[in-house]
Amino acid sequence: MKIAVLGTGMVGQAVATRLAELGHEVTMGSRDAANPKATDWAAGPGQRIAATFTDAAASAELVVNATAGVASLEALALAGADNLDGKVLLDIANPLDFSNGFPPSLSVVNTDSLGEQIQRDFPGAKVVKSLNTMNCEVMVDPARVGGGDHDVFVAGDDADAKAAVTQLLQGFGWAPEHIHDLGGIASARGTEMYLPLWLSLMGSLGSGNFNIKVVRG
Amino acid sequence: MKIAVLGTGMVGQAVATRLAELGHEVTMGSRDAANPKATDWAAGPGQRIAATFTDAAASAELVVNATAGVASLEALALAGADNLDGKVLLDIANPLDFSNGFPPSLSVVNTDSLGEQIQRDFPGAKVVKSLNTMNCEVMVDPARVGGGDHDVFVAGDDADAKAAVTQLLQGFGWAPEHIHDLGGIASARGTEMYLPLWLSLMGSLGSGNFNIKVVRG
Repeated sequence: MKIAVLGTGMVGQAVATRLAELGHEVTMGSRDAANPKATDWAAGPGQRIAATFTDAAASAELVVNATAGVASLEALALAGADNLDGKVLLDIANPLDFSNGFPPSLSVVNTDSLGEQIQRDFPGAKVVKSLNTMNCEVMVDPARVGGGDHDVFVAGDDADAKAAVTQLLQGFGWAPEHIHDLGGIASARGTEMYLPLWLSLMGSLGSGNFNIKVVRG
Repeated sequence: MKIAVLGTGMVGQAVATRLAELGHEVTMGSRDAANPKATDWAAGPGQRIAATFTDAAASAELVVNATAGVASLEALALAGADNLDGKVLLDIANPLDFSNGFPPSLSVVNTDSLGEQIQRDFPGAKVVKSLNTMNCEVMVDPARVGGGDHDVFVAGDDADAKAAVTQLLQGFGWAPEHIHDLGGIASARGTEMYLPLWLSLMGSLGSGNFNIKVVRG
């Protein structure tokens, strides 16, 4: 599939690399097509291309938002609503505000979420929130933690889009029984507001190489 | 041990009943000592007493805050700072604001938490936040979910107080390897902000009979 990964940070690099390994034609989008983080990445093995946010989104069938959460709405506006229309938009960003240092605050909480903001700003896109509850190495290789016996969440208003994301997750190695559908995009609130607990756990465990599993009675 | 459980709701009832079963002398505290929810409970088997917040706290060695989170500071003020001084104060409340219906909002987020507010208002108390990440039946009987293979968090500034709470948790059936020390009371932020994800999961699973397990790489 032609996939655009918007964002050249650690998360974007990890997801884009894994998608290219899996045989997808991946374009890494950034503000500037000559951004060395994107061009260096594109020079790697597999079907890799560097482009602007706009060109990356325009050429893709599915778009991944891996930009910093507090900059996501602006980056997606640069990508262009027309280039997102009718497409699955997998949002893996968290609205973490580091302007007052560590730990970050969430810039949107309670009655709204970044996932919902994106869906409202780009009503033609089929937004699915997922993967934002773990570090990027675990996202693309769940087996590295406890043999994959832990969970990932999906939230979105479009059932077909969630099915497409679920397939992508299975490609990463997520077993179907470990993919939890939380419901509509408003459920993104819960997965985003989980981040402070994730940060506490990272601090107490001394590593981001963990995830949570939902254990049922 | 002489334990005061402040709050007569489902959570207070479940915790107080279990503590009495375990042989503790338990006083259920409420605004009014004649509150039928407390007096009916006190009529049950075991060492059970109904009292005002003040008298309950005064007579106790360890105090459990099981009041509604948005009313906790007021309830603890009624209990009296003098009656909390030097004591372990196990805070299991969540600052859930239901004034706009369901799902509730958190009345304190990001750079503060109910646990920290309580510690600031009652500096002589040794506040430990715990058990607030699951429903009350799971709190007091972890084996009912996945044979107890899931986790509970503790957060607090006083190591001895955390050790006392850890012992109490073990009495409820929590295995030592399932009790995670997250650090100081500021870590309560993470466990309180987890609630929206818990609520989403309860909705999608159709039951509150679950909990999360931290799986390490």
